[in-house]
Amino acid sequence: MTERTLRGTGATPRAGVGTVVWYRPDASLELDDPETVPESERAAERERFAAARDTAREELEVERDRTAERVGEEEAAVFSAHIQFLDDPQIDDGVADALGDGLPAEHAVREAFAGPIEQFEGMEGRMAERADDLRDVRDRLLRLLTGSERVNLAELPEGSVVLAERLTPSDTAQLDPERVAGFATVTGGRTSHAAIFARSLALPAVVGVGPDLETVEEGARVVVDGDTGDVVVDPSDERVAAVETGSGVEVTRERVATADGREIEVAANVGRSAELPGAVEQGADGIGLYRTEFLFLDRETPPDEDEQYETYVDALEAFPDGRVVVRTLDIGGDKQIPYLDLPEEENPFLGERGIRRSLGPDADLFETQLRALLRAGADAGEERRSASGRTQSGDDGGSRLSVMFPLVSTVDELDAALTRVEEVAADLEAEGVAHAIPELGVMVETPGSVFMAREFAARVDFLSIGTNDLAQYVMAAARENEHVAHLHDPLHPPVLRAIDRTVDAAHANDAWVGMCGEMAGDPDLTELLVGLGLDELSMSAVTVPEVKANVAATDGDDASDVADRVLTAETRADVVDLLGVE
Amino acid sequence: MTERTLRGTGATPRAGVGTVVWYRPDASLELDDPETVPESERAAERERFAAARDTAREELEVERDRTAERVGEEEAAVFSAHIQFLDDPQIDDGVADALGDGLPAEHAVREAFAGPIEQFEGMEGRMAERADDLRDVRDRLLRLLTGSERVNLAELPEGSVVLAERLTPSDTAQLDPERVAGFATVTGGRTSHAAIFARSLALPAVVGVGPDLETVEEGARVVVDGDTGDVVVDPSDERVAAVETGSGVEVTRERVATADGREIEVAANVGRSAELPGAVEQGADGIGLYRTEFLFLDRETPPDEDEQYETYVDALEAFPDGRVVVRTLDIGGDKQIPYLDLPEEENPFLGERGIRRSLGPDADLFETQLRALLRAGADAGEERRSASGRTQSGDDGGSRLSVMFPLVSTVDELDAALTRVEEVAADLEAEGVAHAIPELGVMVETPGSVFMAREFAARVDFLSIGTNDLAQYVMAAARENEHVAHLHDPLHPPVLRAIDRTVDAAHANDAWVGMCGEMAGDPDLTELLVGLGLDELSMSAVTVPEVKANVAATDGDDASDVADRVLTAETRADVVDLLGVE
Repeated sequence: MTERTLRGTGATPRAGVGTVVWYRPDASLELDDPETVPESERAAERERFAAARDTAREELEVERDRTAERVGEEEAAVFSAHIQFLDDPQIDDGVADALGDGLPAEHAVREAFAGPIEQFEGMEGRMAERADDLRDVRDRLLRLLTGSERVNLAELPEGSVVLAERLTPSDTAQLDPERVAGFATVTGGRTSHAAIFARSLALPAVVGVGPDLETVEEGARVVVDGDTGDVVVDPSDERVAAVETGSGVEVTRERVATADGREIEVAANVGRSAELPGAVEQGADGIGLYRTEFLFLDRETPPDEDEQYETYVDALEAFPDGRVVVRTLDIGGDKQIPYLDLPEEENPFLGERGIRRSLGPDADLFETQLRALLRAGADAGEERRSASGRTQSGDDGGSRLSVMFPLVSTVDELDAALTRVEEVAADLEAEGVAHAIPELGVMVETPGSVFMAREFAARVDFLSIGTNDLAQYVMAAARENEHVAHLHDPLHPPVLRAIDRTVDAAHANDAWVGMCGEMAGDPDLTELLVGLGLDELSMSAVTVPEVKANVAATDGDDASDVADRVLTAETRADVVDLLGVE
Repeated sequence: MTERTLRGTGATPRAGVGTVVWYRPDASLELDDPETVPESERAAERERFAAARDTAREELEVERDRTAERVGEEEAAVFSAHIQFLDDPQIDDGVADALGDGLPAEHAVREAFAGPIEQFEGMEGRMAERADDLRDVRDRLLRLLTGSERVNLAELPEGSVVLAERLTPSDTAQLDPERVAGFATVTGGRTSHAAIFARSLALPAVVGVGPDLETVEEGARVVVDGDTGDVVVDPSDERVAAVETGSGVEVTRERVATADGREIEVAANVGRSAELPGAVEQGADGIGLYRTEFLFLDRETPPDEDEQYETYVDALEAFPDGRVVVRTLDIGGDKQIPYLDLPEEENPFLGERGIRRSLGPDADLFETQLRALLRAGADAGEERRSASGRTQSGDDGGSRLSVMFPLVSTVDELDAALTRVEEVAADLEAEGVAHAIPELGVMVETPGSVFMAREFAARVDFLSIGTNDLAQYVMAAARENEHVAHLHDPLHPPVLRAIDRTVDAAHANDAWVGMCGEMAGDPDLTELLVGLGLDELSMSAVTVPEVKANVAATDGDDASDVADRVLTAETRADVVDLLGVE
């Protein structure tokens, strides 16, 4: 048997080997036309339905508890909603009526759900999503009644490699890293949600393999190499042995410096408390990007001040000697949040999001979040600082909590946000509540913020470059649009020049500058980023060990030479050549 | 009676005075429940229907011919489609059946159209738009049958000022500048299609007045001042006299130079041959932006090479001594063009548009367009030139036709486009067809192109800054999203810095640099733009006289000082203060 290699985009710098399990969630459950059930057998159909409902409830309770434990209470809520639908009186009556008319149990289920699904489909926003939930519940019952098999992602045999057309965030959330050796999908790119989620679970993953993936058969042995982007079918024994040996990069909890002694902070991006242990385990120096929007998703009301405070304190406690950079709520019209009045937008990426909402319609949420953050700052042993400027430029040695604002594109917005911080501090002071103003910073992710970086850096302690959005706006190419995927790449010269300009502006104003986009976690780019002058790199926890190792192996002068040469490149191909990557 | 002033956004630097006519196209035509028509009266209902259909056909023929003459054959096509629907057999049968059942004629019409409208609504894209056409035809018949009045925009009394919630492009296309003194709308911004169209008709217009506009009564006297953005109800006699006197700016066909002798080209933006006479009349030196997408819209097949050739020659003939800059097809997923396979995109402004499509799925259209352009170039007495670089840098004295590429963001794309020009020239040469390579340029409208402007300028003859898209991408704020309208403005400092960087890069590489976004036509900004170093300004024809006058009144040194000061401004408010505008 010879190896066969399919190529996609690597999502995690890890390789895994295992046995193929195809996941086809949309395999339709076709029912034949029913024959009328004789009166004498209708009681049996009723019992068959009742049994399926009991089993469904048990399954859902197990999935709910597992998700709550492994991912979080918020993510588990969807299963609670499904359990409630099982006991919905309208559906119950509908099933009873249909069984009374002589339909078999599975047809009765299909009929009883049809009306409610259609009702929800006619509604808008959050309510329309209920139609999907109802379909899920219906299909679960149909599966149990017809005995069809559907792969349960949470219960795969150990050593499975999941292949799928696509995996939704809730699909990947169900994957158990103890049992799954990796996954590969037909669609998706490096910055798709599935890929980002895979990195947070440290799962080997290749996305965007294309239709060729369909040629890989159930039960085949494959290597999924998230580093090279290869999916190798029927791998040789040598290859399997190499994968099983692993990358050999050791985890270090020590801070790292370049060969010539320049210290680079290597931090992790997280989105919820459940991800903190992984970040600690991989040796992150701290949190370089805490995405707080996950606190607000998948629930009916926003988290209150105390809940947020606890969350931020959790992060500070996970890194008792490290810095924790929290990004304030970054949300817009591409999300569905029932309690926010998010507009439907033609171009949500160019719409009302990030700081624009925090200074506008979400001002109350912003105030609550700042209150929680300033209280958490006090716990972190912060000194009281001035928000309108650095008290002592360059001195951030004592700071552990940092707060940064997303999608700022004007000085007005930044000044307004800083004023809000001062106001919240004054309120807390008046209330006698312990608080401290944290280190403050700005995300650089719009081209506007690049052109204003020196004015921004003069006002705050640090800048953090978000390369995913920056590349999107600089290249005018949306992150998730496959037709322009070739343009959405930070190695295009204009993106590199924008980064260079931002670093220079920060340093000229005694602000430190970090990077928290996908680019920061690419071990092939560590030398370039050091050479460009970045002080901090923040990434999915899984890539921290390799980036730390690469920082230690980097010589500062060599890195500067690389950066200088790359900045004169005219095309992405030239950049790739100069770096010797891909 | 005292004046009352409502404020909106001025769309055209012209003021007009007249009498209010409210245009409410969606005023619903409510029908009472019908009583059954006695047998004896059914023949009369049939005749009533036939008469209404005849009148509708006559009306549509008049509107078709007027539109063809005033706007263009393509725009007139929609009326031909409406005439066909009047004779559709399915609808004819439906009406006959309903009349036979004893329905009055208007109810029969409503019933006969309901099915076909629903059918089209269930379809996608172009077919779904047919539902709107059918509704238009139905409402026209209902209006005639019920005797309801609906304002006919093409037949307004002289001196009308049209007020409306919004005006679609086809609404504005019907407005007769000889009869209409101006319009004002509740919604819309300076770059909305209605506003742009209004400028091409030189109609006084104010958009985005908000709901207060509804308080203005039918028949009231108003001044619409597209310069200040004011709508003045019950204006004083002095104000009316001032409006009637006009701005007093004289049209000049001469080229203009600053007080110290620097010549600035002042050109017009056009989208179709019908706009050429207006551009000539207003004294434009040439065409600085010929938007060719209008050639491709509202038709079933693309224009062929000969049709395009004729169009481009028309423009060259309209300006026998001027330059004509043609932009190649700039189209993407926010448009509906039946014969192009345009993707549905979540963020069409960040999608596959402009040169991305011309080098990809629309390569054939691009080739046809380049063939037509190179043939037209020969007619313009062009010298044969090299496309891959300027033959003699700085020498474009003999060039009259210029071609530029939209939405270029990488050197690869530009090189590929230039190669296509060379290939097309070689093909024409081999075929023995007269041709010449025109002057070549690039639109600077993505932030990426700003960062690569020096590489671009080294490869082509000129750069042209498209400020509408540039502001959109630099500020990450979509043009038509009212929630972020305050950010979509070229006076924000980062946009001005991007323009400055582009001009410097062009001049350092001996390329000339123009501007063809809305900003170029704002007479308040002429001094700033001269000071920033722009060599050419291209705008809606209506603003050419004022901008020419302002160029002549500008001193080069003063302008440079203004630009230098503005470039240090930190906020838009500072810019506005420095310029003394608004």
